[in-house]
Amino acid sequence: MPGSVVVLGTGLIGTSIALAMRAKDATVWLSDADESAARLAADLGAGQLLPASGVPSGPADLAVLAVPPAAVGPALAHAQYRGLARCYTDVASVKELPLERARELGCDLTTFVPGHPMSGRERSGPAAARADLFAGRTWIICPAPQTAPGCVATVTELAQACEARPAMMSAAQHDQWVALISHVPHMVAAAMAALCLDAPQGALGLAGPGLRDVTRIAESDPGLWAEILSANATRVRSGLLAVIGQLQAAAGVLGGVDDGDAESVKRLLSWLEAGRDGVARLPGKQGGPAPGYRAVQVVIADKPGELARLFAVAGAAGVNIEDVRIEHSPGLPVGVAELSVRPQQADGLSAALAEAGWPVTSPP
Amino acid sequence: MPGSVVVLGTGLIGTSIALAMRAKDATVWLSDADESAARLAADLGAGQLLPASGVPSGPADLAVLAVPPAAVGPALAHAQYRGLARCYTDVASVKELPLERARELGCDLTTFVPGHPMSGRERSGPAAARADLFAGRTWIICPAPQTAPGCVATVTELAQACEARPAMMSAAQHDQWVALISHVPHMVAAAMAALCLDAPQGALGLAGPGLRDVTRIAESDPGLWAEILSANATRVRSGLLAVIGQLQAAAGVLGGVDDGDAESVKRLLSWLEAGRDGVARLPGKQGGPAPGYRAVQVVIADKPGELARLFAVAGAAGVNIEDVRIEHSPGLPVGVAELSVRPQQADGLSAALAEAGWPVTSPP
Repeated sequence: MPGSVVVLGTGLIGTSIALAMRAKDATVWLSDADESAARLAADLGAGQLLPASGVPSGPADLAVLAVPPAAVGPALAHAQYRGLARCYTDVASVKELPLERARELGCDLTTFVPGHPMSGRERSGPAAARADLFAGRTWIICPAPQTAPGCVATVTELAQACEARPAMMSAAQHDQWVALISHVPHMVAAAMAALCLDAPQGALGLAGPGLRDVTRIAESDPGLWAEILSANATRVRSGLLAVIGQLQAAAGVLGGVDDGDAESVKRLLSWLEAGRDGVARLPGKQGGPAPGYRAVQVVIADKPGELARLFAVAGAAGVNIEDVRIEHSPGLPVGVAELSVRPQQADGLSAALAEAGWPVTSPP
Repeated sequence: MPGSVVVLGTGLIGTSIALAMRAKDATVWLSDADESAARLAADLGAGQLLPASGVPSGPADLAVLAVPPAAVGPALAHAQYRGLARCYTDVASVKELPLERARELGCDLTTFVPGHPMSGRERSGPAAARADLFAGRTWIICPAPQTAPGCVATVTELAQACEARPAMMSAAQHDQWVALISHVPHMVAAAMAALCLDAPQGALGLAGPGLRDVTRIAESDPGLWAEILSANATRVRSGLLAVIGQLQAAAGVLGGVDDGDAESVKRLLSWLEAGRDGVARLPGKQGGPAPGYRAVQVVIADKPGELARLFAVAGAAGVNIEDVRIEHSPGLPVGVAELSVRPQQADGLSAALAEAGWPVTSPP
């Protein structure tokens, strides 16, 4: 783990890295073009202000350039000129542009390890920083061919010290993938949000979490995002055209529905099913049984040992329960255990559980 | 409050209403075309199964038709023929179609109060039901000109018993507004989700909460949604065309950025700002100071009385704090209080707090 770290740029990401490294007892030096932001980060316990003369004890193990994408190249050139650290990394949401700029500026690419912790919040600035911002998240590392393995190791250790999972890939691969999973969704959210600009306040007052979720990421700093999206414009544009194609198809289908065409309702259903199947491919908690399994639902008492007893009955019936999820409405003495099993075992499990006295349902 | 309620359709919404009414000690009768769904709801404590002969003690105070939009008309006709209740309501996400169908079927419109509790989950079925599903949410009620005031009152009391906030409007107004706040966002989410269907699993594995939030609602039952969207096709299509227009403008701007046009980056920024401003109009927790205010950030110790002391200093300085939010990174002994004040008072407050010994920042 890098024992001494300079953080250049004490915004949300820089300050969060600083807090995480302070929690691991690293020495952290803080600097920001906005001195009050660096001071706030220091006041929060993220480290000490970097003196104008540089790190007092000589080069730090690592300098983290937590600045917007277009600023990474110049910041790297300047930091290397000052000899701030033995290795350098950045945290920008695009990876080809900073590397290209660094190359153009004649930076030493052997000590530069482009990086991107896949984490963020809608709020920006040091006040929003959290030491656990990266916990469990992916931290992408994109070494160039000339990057020194020692510096790659240092940045990998930084990611691990921040409780993130490091993942190696090329800058081009990174930019292609984040266009899909981050940049295009950002613009889709903003397009939907723009419709709310002229909507009656009465209508917006009725909005539930659905609209808020769809548009949430559009709340992030437009200035930073204009820079990120510009740096990945070709790929983002091509993703947008694909979304536009999807929406045009849907609008066409709705036109058919309006004209009373029965086929159109079926096509609308297929279109919605594609969306549902797309969501099912995303990591994280999903609804319903795992694909290829059937669900058996059992009403169980909300008391210790009940699930164990249920698993024992299933085991005795020779049924392997692949997954279980519990639904429990607050205030009720009972809940529903939803058991995912192989389709051919669902009836056997239902019978065994009913035999043992549980109320069982097997949804279609 | 209706003391006896028949719930026809024990899916997520019907069973949640039943659970909420049981919590208020109402007598609840349950029925569903899928008998196992009604049984599961009864096993959960949502009420008792409705006998084939109807409510034993004579008509209930209210029957809730918790069935898909196209089924409301026929279900109402059948329930009125059986004389199940003194008043009837539905919960469908569109309101003109069920009313029109009921009229065509010759239903008694004096006892029918079209309704729509604005709540839901991605999961469906009785197992996902929650007694608190409607707490704090809007419950829209759309009486027709001929609806009896007594039945409107009964449905209003149902909404209140479920802890929801009743709101009256016309069916046309409802359908117009939900197109914007629910139906169009649903299709936007599904369009983005459809792109994930063919995406490399490696890319999806990196996705953070952003993509998941944007696409989450597309996980809901496609069959039900095909019916909802079909019943509001004209309005949804027109909303979709507006989103497509937004995305086409954005794609055009990105094309300009790609061609190195400096004006295009500015236009991209304006486009993103419109999205951010749209999100700011939505109800619920927002980031940043309220519009028209400036934020003053103060690092405060995580201990009792600290905020009170801070407010006392602000009061003594004659500054009115309009809003306050606290950011606190886990494990830190300090947090940041962000105070929203009138712009002309920000400097005075900063000075007063600094004077009193607090580290203060006033972000631009």
